[in-house]
Amino acid sequence: MDKIQSLTGMLDQYDDGDMSNVSSKLFEVEKIIKNIFTSYKFQEIRTPVLEDANLYKRSVGDSSDIVNKEIYSFNDRNDKTIAMRPEGTASVIRSIIEKKLDQTNHKLWYLGPMWRYERPQKGRYRQFNQAGIEVLGIPEGLPEYEMISVVCSVIYEFKLKNCCIKINHLGTRENKQSFCKTLVNFLEPFKKDLDEKDLERLSKNPLRVLDSKNSKTQAILQNAPSIKEFIDQSSINLLESIKNEFSDLCKIEIDHNLVRGLDYYSGFVFEAISSELGAQDSFLGGGRYDQLSSQLGGKNMPAIGMAIGLERLANIAKVELVDRKLVTFVIAASNLEPKAYKIAHHLRSINRDITLDINLAEGSLKSKMRKANKNNSHYVIIIGDEELKSKTAVIKSLKDELGEQQTVSIEDLYSFYESL
Amino acid sequence: MDKIQSLTGMLDQYDDGDMSNVSSKLFEVEKIIKNIFTSYKFQEIRTPVLEDANLYKRSVGDSSDIVNKEIYSFNDRNDKTIAMRPEGTASVIRSIIEKKLDQTNHKLWYLGPMWRYERPQKGRYRQFNQAGIEVLGIPEGLPEYEMISVVCSVIYEFKLKNCCIKINHLGTRENKQSFCKTLVNFLEPFKKDLDEKDLERLSKNPLRVLDSKNSKTQAILQNAPSIKEFIDQSSINLLESIKNEFSDLCKIEIDHNLVRGLDYYSGFVFEAISSELGAQDSFLGGGRYDQLSSQLGGKNMPAIGMAIGLERLANIAKVELVDRKLVTFVIAASNLEPKAYKIAHHLRSINRDITLDINLAEGSLKSKMRKANKNNSHYVIIIGDEELKSKTAVIKSLKDELGEQQTVSIEDLYSFYESL
Repeated sequence: MDKIQSLTGMLDQYDDGDMSNVSSKLFEVEKIIKNIFTSYKFQEIRTPVLEDANLYKRSVGDSSDIVNKEIYSFNDRNDKTIAMRPEGTASVIRSIIEKKLDQTNHKLWYLGPMWRYERPQKGRYRQFNQAGIEVLGIPEGLPEYEMISVVCSVIYEFKLKNCCIKINHLGTRENKQSFCKTLVNFLEPFKKDLDEKDLERLSKNPLRVLDSKNSKTQAILQNAPSIKEFIDQSSINLLESIKNEFSDLCKIEIDHNLVRGLDYYSGFVFEAISSELGAQDSFLGGGRYDQLSSQLGGKNMPAIGMAIGLERLANIAKVELVDRKLVTFVIAASNLEPKAYKIAHHLRSINRDITLDINLAEGSLKSKMRKANKNNSHYVIIIGDEELKSKTAVIKSLKDELGEQQTVSIEDLYSFYESL
Repeated sequence: MDKIQSLTGMLDQYDDGDMSNVSSKLFEVEKIIKNIFTSYKFQEIRTPVLEDANLYKRSVGDSSDIVNKEIYSFNDRNDKTIAMRPEGTASVIRSIIEKKLDQTNHKLWYLGPMWRYERPQKGRYRQFNQAGIEVLGIPEGLPEYEMISVVCSVIYEFKLKNCCIKINHLGTRENKQSFCKTLVNFLEPFKKDLDEKDLERLSKNPLRVLDSKNSKTQAILQNAPSIKEFIDQSSINLLESIKNEFSDLCKIEIDHNLVRGLDYYSGFVFEAISSELGAQDSFLGGGRYDQLSSQLGGKNMPAIGMAIGLERLANIAKVELVDRKLVTFVIAASNLEPKAYKIAHHLRSINRDITLDINLAEGSLKSKMRKANKNNSHYVIIIGDEELKSKTAVIKSLKDELGEQQTVSIEDLYSFYESL
């Protein structure tokens, strides 16, 4: 019979407890990320995977790559266009508005799969994972510091080297618009020198020309106007202050060409890059998006947030597995296994912090012991016919060099397991 | 501007740390479930949300409600029929076959959202959550005990009352088929008395008639043949043995009418019900499915598994929130907040087990203290102009009745926070 394959760009992830396995590492990275968020008192929000596709058109923006080319959308049975979420923020704001919570402060985190319909490339899948945070309801000020503080915590907890945090300020919406206009005017005479991609950006989302990887474009931009000339002194001061406060923790660079790909940003924006990631060197990014709530039909709600690409972060993170203690339970009885199994059940119920492995398949005592060693068990508990009769068990330490074993009563076995 | 709404039957879930909030409780239930699975040495597997819809037709079965009526499917840009996964097992087996791991033993768990396209009813959403485990590669025997052991652990850890585990044995595939034939013959003369739903079941998946909620059908079934007459004595013995071993932990009932809705089951099947759940009283179920791997084009691979409906479990679970210690950091300085903020950053980095809350919004000292009390903070750390100048901080205990406060140096503040 022919096999059914997984879909293009959709990955199976499988934990084997080995940090050289990318999936195992990703799962561990997620646990650490959640703990960082919680230490800042962010609270979890989970929005649905499916949303009305219009949500992304109206938030992320028609001109962004995400909506323009990459969105994974389909028509449902009622011919409504549905999208698999490409990012987390729009959904969070939609939810806050729908719950009528758009006049309260919130500190939220989310973590989960996102989708984009693009040709899969090395390390880029159609289903991938992002974690993000949002601070809602508070205007420019401390929330900006909180964002960079979280970024520094991520860099610190994952022992990232060769990182840099780039920060910029896009000013008010008016600042951004007048800069945009000036930039378009500046580029007008150079149109013939721009490649197709940059021309498209110029017509749809001019600021993104600043992101161009084309060296010819970058040469032209050398003499272009800078956003710096369009924003207030207080914005410059904020950038300087953040740079001063956090520079002892991570390299911070003010980069006036940093614009971010999504339409909804204004004000403070940032990105963290690592030279260990190659050409696509950013692993997290964010910024202020004070207009998004009203754009989606909600109240005015100042907001700032960031998202982390978890596969990219896992790629460069240093993670040590926090080892749970592992005990192997070997049933060496000729029959009556249920009685022995029941002892294992009881052990697990008295100490859930221990992982108790049982060889459920048939096999010799020798092969079971070999597996216990291979699995790096701390102890083996053996119960055979003799032990079942005398209501005892054998405990053998595999970490102790002497490898001594002792026969104990079942009650003592329970006390021993509880105290592990 | 008009608001964009969430889609029908798609829920936003939001944690506020209060166990009377169903989302908060669900998130806590998930953590406990993962810990139970880990204590049994199950390892996480994550398969994609989207699969080729044929996967479910060939596994769960065309005649099941899941595939027949409820599957959330759509055509992608290449006109291929894609399904949002309705359950976890088929995907796991597809993955194991695709990775060519179908001749090894595995103990796997998964947890995540599933979808069904049905009219939402109270407590039933189009996106819902399931957790499940699979023991792969091991024939009937200890894996059956392991399943019921996990069920008992779930019942124990969530302090579930008024539960019953129903168990049954469907025999070999041949046993199941000949019982099926006999049942169809028995029901033939009663066809005129069956309602439309039961008639449909009779033609598509006769065993499911046994699940009928129609009292007239149940009356007819009183004299129907029982699966008990078609299965081997060893199967009866297994049921009796499991009942004997675990009856001290939970009420266990052998129910020969228990057939389970999915096509792929044979052999041992089980379900846990709670009278606190109303008419739809089952919150977990599972069974053996030795044929599924070869049915999907893989090697012969004996297998057994179960899935838990997490919203249903959360509905009846007793969960106590394991409190993280909460400290509130109050910046009471007139300016220079960044210096104070930086101290908070450092505190978090030296003890990630504490949640440190900072009021990011402007406000009076009084309102910030009120919020700290309301949030149930253990301590408040206050830094104002005076403290910034003298490099000190004020620590105030909110749990201590005397509510004493002390001024300490920043170094002592760090030591205090580390030792919390």
